[in-house]
Amino acid sequence: MAGNSFGNLFKLTTFGESHGIAIGGIIDGCPPGLEVDFDAIQLELNRRKPGQSEIVTQRKEPDTVEFLSGIFEGKTTGTPIGFNIQNANQKSKDYSHIKDVYRPSHADYTYDKKYGIRDYRGGGRSSARETASRVVAGALAKQVLKSVKIHAYTSSVGNIFLEKPYQDLDFSKIESNVIRCPDAETAERMINKIKAIRKEGNTIGGTVTCVLQNVPIGLGEPVFDKLHAELGKAMLSINAVKGFEYGSGFCGAKMTGTEHNDLFNADGSTKTNLSGGIQGGISNGMDIYFRVAFKPVATVIQKQEALNSNGELVDMQGKGRHDPCVVPRAVPIVEAMAALVLADYFLLNKVY
Amino acid sequence: MAGNSFGNLFKLTTFGESHGIAIGGIIDGCPPGLEVDFDAIQLELNRRKPGQSEIVTQRKEPDTVEFLSGIFEGKTTGTPIGFNIQNANQKSKDYSHIKDVYRPSHADYTYDKKYGIRDYRGGGRSSARETASRVVAGALAKQVLKSVKIHAYTSSVGNIFLEKPYQDLDFSKIESNVIRCPDAETAERMINKIKAIRKEGNTIGGTVTCVLQNVPIGLGEPVFDKLHAELGKAMLSINAVKGFEYGSGFCGAKMTGTEHNDLFNADGSTKTNLSGGIQGGISNGMDIYFRVAFKPVATVIQKQEALNSNGELVDMQGKGRHDPCVVPRAVPIVEAMAALVLADYFLLNKVY
Amino acid sequence: MAGNSFGNLFKLTTFGESHGIAIGGIIDGCPPGLEVDFDAIQLELNRRKPGQSEIVTQRKEPDTVEFLSGIFEGKTTGTPIGFNIQNANQKSKDYSHIKDVYRPSHADYTYDKKYGIRDYRGGGRSSARETASRVVAGALAKQVLKSVKIHAYTSSVGNIFLEKPYQDLDFSKIESNVIRCPDAETAERMINKIKAIRKEGNTIGGTVTCVLQNVPIGLGEPVFDKLHAELGKAMLSINAVKGFEYGSGFCGAKMTGTEHNDLFNADGSTKTNLSGGIQGGISNGMDIYFRVAFKPVATVIQKQEALNSNGELVDMQGKGRHDPCVVPRAVPIVEAMAALVLADYFLLNKVY
Amino acid sequence: MAGNSFGNLFKLTTFGESHGIAIGGIIDGCPPGLEVDFDAIQLELNRRKPGQSEIVTQRKEPDTVEFLSGIFEGKTTGTPIGFNIQNANQKSKDYSHIKDVYRPSHADYTYDKKYGIRDYRGGGRSSARETASRVVAGALAKQVLKSVKIHAYTSSVGNIFLEKPYQDLDFSKIESNVIRCPDAETAERMINKIKAIRKEGNTIGGTVTCVLQNVPIGLGEPVFDKLHAELGKAMLSINAVKGFEYGSGFCGAKMTGTEHNDLFNADGSTKTNLSGGIQGGISNGMDIYFRVAFKPVATVIQKQEALNSNGELVDMQGKGRHDPCVVPRAVPIVEAMAALVLADYFLLNKVY
Repeated sequence: MAGNSFGNLFKLTTFGESHGIAIGGIIDGCPPGLEVDFDAIQLELNRRKPGQSEIVTQRKEPDTVEFLSGIFEGKTTGTPIGFNIQNANQKSKDYSHIKDVYRPSHADYTYDKKYGIRDYRGGGRSSARETASRVVAGALAKQVLKSVKIHAYTSSVGNIFLEKPYQDLDFSKIESNVIRCPDAETAERMINKIKAIRKEGNTIGGTVTCVLQNVPIGLGEPVFDKLHAELGKAMLSINAVKGFEYGSGFCGAKMTGTEHNDLFNADGSTKTNLSGGIQGGISNGMDIYFRVAFKPVATVIQKQEALNSNGELVDMQGKGRHDPCVVPRAVPIVEAMAALVLADYFLLNKVY
Repeated sequence: MAGNSFGNLFKLTTFGESHGIAIGGIIDGCPPGLEVDFDAIQLELNRRKPGQSEIVTQRKEPDTVEFLSGIFEGKTTGTPIGFNIQNANQKSKDYSHIKDVYRPSHADYTYDKKYGIRDYRGGGRSSARETASRVVAGALAKQVLKSVKIHAYTSSVGNIFLEKPYQDLDFSKIESNVIRCPDAETAERMINKIKAIRKEGNTIGGTVTCVLQNVPIGLGEPVFDKLHAELGKAMLSINAVKGFEYGSGFCGAKMTGTEHNDLFNADGSTKTNLSGGIQGGISNGMDIYFRVAFKPVATVIQKQEALNSNGELVDMQGKGRHDPCVVPRAVPIVEAMAALVLADYFLLNKVY
Repeated sequence: MAGNSFGNLFKLTTFGESHGIAIGGIIDGCPPGLEVDFDAIQLELNRRKPGQSEIVTQRKEPDTVEFLSGIFEGKTTGTPIGFNIQNANQKSKDYSHIKDVYRPSHADYTYDKKYGIRDYRGGGRSSARETASRVVAGALAKQVLKSVKIHAYTSSVGNIFLEKPYQDLDFSKIESNVIRCPDAETAERMINKIKAIRKEGNTIGGTVTCVLQNVPIGLGEPVFDKLHAELGKAMLSINAVKGFEYGSGFCGAKMTGTEHNDLFNADGSTKTNLSGGIQGGISNGMDIYFRVAFKPVATVIQKQEALNSNGELVDMQGKGRHDPCVVPRAVPIVEAMAALVLADYFLLNKVY
Repeated sequence: MAGNSFGNLFKLTTFGESHGIAIGGIIDGCPPGLEVDFDAIQLELNRRKPGQSEIVTQRKEPDTVEFLSGIFEGKTTGTPIGFNIQNANQKSKDYSHIKDVYRPSHADYTYDKKYGIRDYRGGGRSSARETASRVVAGALAKQVLKSVKIHAYTSSVGNIFLEKPYQDLDFSKIESNVIRCPDAETAERMINKIKAIRKEGNTIGGTVTCVLQNVPIGLGEPVFDKLHAELGKAMLSINAVKGFEYGSGFCGAKMTGTEHNDLFNADGSTKTNLSGGIQGGISNGMDIYFRVAFKPVATVIQKQEALNSNGELVDMQGKGRHDPCVVPRAVPIVEAMAALVLADYFLLNKVY
């Protein structure tokens, strides 16, 4: 209820501001006896890291995770797993130019109105930096979900769409380019678009599609904690997300019942999968797939009008590094949140 | 965690199957001293009721709510409010034809696999009938949210879209037609479409748009319980919902930062509102608006192949009454869930 | 958080005032496929019922439970189980003499200060009548806990103590007398004491001891949700309870380590059991036993000074029926709460 | 539900084993704008610290807390407060002698049975070392509860009881001796008793009494989350606690109604306070007082029989430092847990 915990039986609680001493979290409820693959966790952090390519922010952060508890001789013990990620940037930059300024379409104004105080350095708690803690926990959750395959990828940047359905894609190609789009030709167009946008000092939005395969039948708790409702909340909690759809999504709203119904095969699978692997809020064993919309990053390297705390409109010149497109770094975050949701239902529904 | 509660401080827990003795719920946490407008509650129930017009299901249910506790001499006492809605239909129909059959794109199969047993009559717990309990609680929540205005309306049916932005609509017209679209000309086209679909024994999807006005600044709990994340979960928990977007939504993912940023006015309001009234997960005082996608109802009055519990594909002829389009009856449900989310944050953030 | 739910995975939410239309609740999370023994549930309600003997209140309530959902053809379906118990007494008595009066050591004053309004009839929500809903849910929980044996009994009334340890008692004798003390001689003294107290229009306190046998090893969630911490909260939530101790309890605080330590047998059981079946908050397979202190009922049939809402001290003459000793009727309530705690941990720890 | 969080709106989540890298926690929900008194927090930690006097364990731990987030320029920001306490002892001692051994009346056996794995060094997660994190959070909670006074003290050691009621004590004397008993003469007897016990290599139990003054009227959420039920759970979650009673407690169970009822004064206060400041689960403005029983520490420096993981009974010679009486160090832990409970209800009931 206090806002910084996610999940019930596999529960992540996070802390940390962009420019404080450290960010981190506590993972409570991880099953005992799991041999932790630390490299796999760091790998996921690296996929989210700033500076990983020329199309993302060039801010420098090593983003190395340190585990403090809950793991003994390489295995989880069933006790809470505390972890820290030090902030390299904590004293490196002057933020006095935004100290009293509310930047447009940032959370500066709402944080100040809600709390009456804020750590203005780099967005403080509202910075997407906190998602690094989610990636750590999600990477561990993936290790709990052994049989499940989780693949996210960039499905659009601005008006450039990956037109192929996920069934026609080779997920092993996702990491073969910096935009994380498994179709080489589309990826190139996306990358070029972002480079052009970056040069303008502008930013651009996009979408991430995620596919969950080999999910056991029976996950989800109707009527309020339906599997897709929890997935939707998880995705909408990521910074910059504006929409979520699963299965047929908004397109499904244009269809008729006879078009939309998924007829059964004799083994209980379905011939089509407009349902998106979930019926009545419960997984049905088919692939679960969903799409997440990200708005363009608000920080642009152009002159914009901002509001200061005296109620004056002031010119503000964005400066320094900016993140032209959040989508490639959002791919591992989407996967992490999906893993957290599934791990929670795995424990609840006793399928692990 | 058990799935049938929504909210934390203003909390609804529901029970009931489509053809059991009764459905109902408990509202826990309603502030004391509220003079209850019982007529307003019944009015909302009537907006959701079957048989209210020729374009919805003709099933007959009086849907009268009885309050059992928590209200004394017309006022809430701060103690839990129990309520029942009797089921008129409980013994009225023969469901033996679907007893052992999993209907396509219904939750029959997943409920049976998850629980190993199900009340097959009319979908049992997976029936949208349970949303009547949500409407009761939401109608009470609206009375807690005195200053807030909540307006939902039908924004599309199949390929027929209400093209106007919400700012150009007269919300007082929503109830002037049976489809609940405030634009008379579009409404007529939608209604005709549904009539044609109904004659075919088919069904059609659509979208509901909802606008929340006069929401105080400061509602929402980052980083996981952002206001729009909770709204998204609430909407996705409604039967047949496939997608949720707020503010610029999926369109925002096509835009650039300079297009998308909402510049401030000196009073803290913004010149545009692509953010949809929420920044960083916290309400900013502007209108909150979002759109919800509903798939077409799965029950069609046509022959379809179904699966039985012996693993055989069998022909099934839909019969009797069906609901050609769920959207007009979904309008009050969307409003109810929005009211429940807001009431919970009102209590949490102490703004009531 | 709103106060009227107990448990997480096996969750009870209750509603209802003493003199409203009905009391009742929703049991969410009961495992599916359980053949419900309705007679056993009614039997537990009868053990709690007013008027069952000459040493308890003579108020008349049939206390018949009606189940509304979640049970199909005699078996639980995994969906929420709604139930009601009608109040026979709702219009039967004149409460105007206490309308504006705060009775000493009742909750009249605190409810009025907290909520600003109260249903003054018979104590409203603060009446122990709400425990009938707990007994219904606890009786169902007992059916989930097939192998576990739960036995509570009256271990003291005033200064009359059952001196024997629980190991020397024959639990089958608990129901053989109206005070529910398995030792006939002690029972008779307790009953005579209560009869004398009743004649004076006075009341008396006492203790209930409860023994849980065949509890699987491993229940309990350190560090905050230790098994005995949850049992303690459960018991302290019952009306009139002032204390809880388990195992050696307050006597253990007088002992030394060498006296108190329970040495092991080779099979993991222990030679003594001062620990009370729980180590580090986790059940160890030994008998769990605890003791609960109940204060004397506040309503006495004597003249007492009360406070009215104008801040005046006024004479109040208790009248009508009173409950000279709550302990015999508390026995099934203690058992019910213990069953609810265990059922919750059974589901969480996947031992059912 | 995962066991390592306490509270809802003022929520503490902890992590850490006795001999891991660090212990610590996250405090989520602390109100913003609070000027943090860091010295006061460290002072509380020092009261709990090992080695502080000759009557407690001589283990050496600096127990310095480092705050990582949620505090900006000395004030809380409303965002989660992460903190770490490094373990000095992590590699300092050889624990191989207990690696495969279950010590009597420790949690070794139950942790191993529950989790199938354990960090055996110094008790791992089951060590009372985790209470240091509680003390940090409780010390912060105290700063939120400005007007409330929280005083705990040692009220018995073995058979030595502080016979005076709390009203006759001078709380400013609590810290004037190492046993934390405000009566000098009784304190001396307690200290001598512990010294004798220590020499024998034995340990002894005791009780802590706690008094909460100036608590606002109206805290507590009936019917399950009554204020004393939550206090009871909080205390029972502390290592070694066997019992909890408030107000008249177990003595109240021996009394009659006319003896026990607290008659009102005209201002709403009561002439006596056997109720212990709580009626119907809600604070009534009078002093809240309760007593907590601690068993003797299980580690004794004597030969004892233990069980090994092969199911063999083996002789075990306790060695090194031991803690002859946990009670003086438990005093600040009891206060911390009381502060956490009150802070949670302060936020919930909007009295801060």
